[in-house]
Amino acid sequence: METNGVQWKEISGGISAPVGFYASGVKAGVKYREKYDLALIFSATKANAAGMFTRNVVKAHPLLLTQKHLQNGQAQAVIINSGNANACMGERGERDAWQMAETTALELGINLQDVLVASTGVIGQPMPMEKIVPGIKSAAAAVKSLQQQCSSSINNQRNCQIKALSAHQAALAIMTTDTKEKEASFELECEGGTIKLGIMAKGSGMIHPNMGTMLCFITTDAQVESSRLKTLLQEATDESFNMVSVDGDTSTNDMVLMLANGLSGVKPEGKDWHVFSQMVKEACRSMAKAIARDGEGASKFLEVKVTGAKDICSARMIARSVCSSNLVKTAIYGQDANWGRIVAAAGYSGASFDPERVDVFLNGLQVASQGRGLQFSEDEALLRLTSKDILIEIKLGDGRGEAVAWGCDLTHRYIDINADYRT
Amino acid sequence: METNGVQWKEISGGISAPVGFYASGVKAGVKYREKYDLALIFSATKANAAGMFTRNVVKAHPLLLTQKHLQNGQAQAVIINSGNANACMGERGERDAWQMAETTALELGINLQDVLVASTGVIGQPMPMEKIVPGIKSAAAAVKSLQQQCSSSINNQRNCQIKALSAHQAALAIMTTDTKEKEASFELECEGGTIKLGIMAKGSGMIHPNMGTMLCFITTDAQVESSRLKTLLQEATDESFNMVSVDGDTSTNDMVLMLANGLSGVKPEGKDWHVFSQMVKEACRSMAKAIARDGEGASKFLEVKVTGAKDICSARMIARSVCSSNLVKTAIYGQDANWGRIVAAAGYSGASFDPERVDVFLNGLQVASQGRGLQFSEDEALLRLTSKDILIEIKLGDGRGEAVAWGCDLTHRYIDINADYRT
Repeated sequence: METNGVQWKEISGGISAPVGFYASGVKAGVKYREKYDLALIFSATKANAAGMFTRNVVKAHPLLLTQKHLQNGQAQAVIINSGNANACMGERGERDAWQMAETTALELGINLQDVLVASTGVIGQPMPMEKIVPGIKSAAAAVKSLQQQCSSSINNQRNCQIKALSAHQAALAIMTTDTKEKEASFELECEGGTIKLGIMAKGSGMIHPNMGTMLCFITTDAQVESSRLKTLLQEATDESFNMVSVDGDTSTNDMVLMLANGLSGVKPEGKDWHVFSQMVKEACRSMAKAIARDGEGASKFLEVKVTGAKDICSARMIARSVCSSNLVKTAIYGQDANWGRIVAAAGYSGASFDPERVDVFLNGLQVASQGRGLQFSEDEALLRLTSKDILIEIKLGDGRGEAVAWGCDLTHRYIDINADYRT
Repeated sequence: METNGVQWKEISGGISAPVGFYASGVKAGVKYREKYDLALIFSATKANAAGMFTRNVVKAHPLLLTQKHLQNGQAQAVIINSGNANACMGERGERDAWQMAETTALELGINLQDVLVASTGVIGQPMPMEKIVPGIKSAAAAVKSLQQQCSSSINNQRNCQIKALSAHQAALAIMTTDTKEKEASFELECEGGTIKLGIMAKGSGMIHPNMGTMLCFITTDAQVESSRLKTLLQEATDESFNMVSVDGDTSTNDMVLMLANGLSGVKPEGKDWHVFSQMVKEACRSMAKAIARDGEGASKFLEVKVTGAKDICSARMIARSVCSSNLVKTAIYGQDANWGRIVAAAGYSGASFDPERVDVFLNGLQVASQGRGLQFSEDEALLRLTSKDILIEIKLGDGRGEAVAWGCDLTHRYIDINADYRT
């Protein structure tokens, strides 16, 4: 990938690719037998940290604890389980989240305040602490062993392989209805030196997208102050995870966390900061797209691109509205070039625009011009809509606001999955 | 039905039950062979009139014309077609809507300004005027013949039967994916005399509910000023049609029109006005429920009742959010007592509430208390959820705001219907 002539490249290693990060995933038995369901991310030194959280009034217990622990802008470990959301559990839920943090802190020999906790899964079920606590012990033992091995051994390549495998198990452990693990890592050669970035995410509930909890964890060995980290994470989230389908709905557990431990010794400034920011945003967009692509029961990936809007806010509202319209999503599933539903969904987005200046393209085929339908070949339209990737372009004549939203079609399989998720 | 000891009763006659109203429905050939698709409502004298319209930025051509013609608060006829929305058609769309009004005015011998036009169906297809114009002529001939017969003949009972049959054909003619016609009529004996009310509606697109256009027409022989009519219609719409599922989304064509011709000679005031208002609101609620019950592919009717909210606005936001959550709707389809999804959907409604004071009941069975799940019998829950009618009660501890929303479950059949609606 390239931005203004400066490059970053994809490397292996996942969430533990940056210097000083270690990760592990274990089978604690929360989810069901023989599935990874508990992940741990650990930094050799205390890291600057920032988080973005659900806007839901109802917040899960681990999320509230994590918000509290992030107040000082620092963290050293993140413990994450799947299979149980630990939400709506009253005092017991608070206690369980706290015990997850405490066990992690004790096992790693770090401060309780420096442990962040995330959970995803069913709401309103008691967390099986008798499985979680031994799980945390195994996960902590694994990262400590990795750390020791990497510091003592000279077989660097083999260490990297083991670290990467362990990070991969962490990426597996945070999945729920996801069909694919979502992880990546990048290396940036900038003027100040080499910076690495690791990322992993989960999410696949695509209709009210964040409802099927969205989690993302980002690590970097760059030196970045907490406040700057927070601003960057906010910007990156707004144009990535917040553009995955639907209307701003958020689950009780959604969170995006970023840890920067500075162990690369590189503090990106000026042009380096610009490229570093681009890399973080691009990494978040790639995860957001992977989440959309893995939408529950999805048969098609949907990208909605709005240009010419009054401003960026209007562009985002329109893109999200179209991308989250059940009628649009069902039409895409049915391979029906129903541009009327697209225009109508743009119309009720809440953003204002001139309906007489709307052009619509489906995978490059123009189907509406200046707010009116065009005569187009239904055969040609059908041919383009048989593609697994669908691009809806909406060109407005109101300004320079642009945005992209991602989602998927609405299928019979979605109903199958969600009619019986809990039981 | 009874309110404060004063009664109104259901009578036959549908939209043309009130004195001086005549209606007809014909098969113009817009939809497909042998289906009613063009309806006409006619008042013997000019009536006071009011309308509520879609909030969509993209507005259908007939809707814009109707808004213009309603500026003086009067109308004498409404012409409605199904099968074609006449939306996004540019100048041609404007001209077609205008021609529909003009033909109706000419045939009935009334002013163009006094004709309102409504359309529902596919967006972006040219209106087949070669079928519409002869259709309007037939429909106008039918209402004129009814009018003549009723004024000359002494066989009152038979006339009423014929009028009712003709009104029923009008109710059939406005249907699209509706599986049932939706019409009713009422008679109110109040201190000033007898007032009659007729109503008919269409709508069945239940996910983005108003997307599958919602139309409603109300007639009365009461004497009501336009401005008062408008206020009443606004209030009635807010607690009925605007509470049918989902998030305020509106189609390009949604409208609710009310005509009051005053031919009963009764001007309801004081207590009479109160009862008359209640009757109008109850009539609108009954249509709203019928629309929800007829949701596309619905297997269950969903009622969400919120009490104890901070205010009525919060209560409505929460009720609509839960009622329109795809995850809640799919769980109801799967007969899964997934109260966590209910609490989460309340949480992202945009309304604020204390999550620690939420009680949830499913068809009377309490499943959550004070924001926490209760131990309940899954067998008992399943038994209650096998019912075709599902009542979700959400009791908050924040105030006295109350609201009810109606919707339906999300099913495989919905996908079938909407994956291929246009073609």
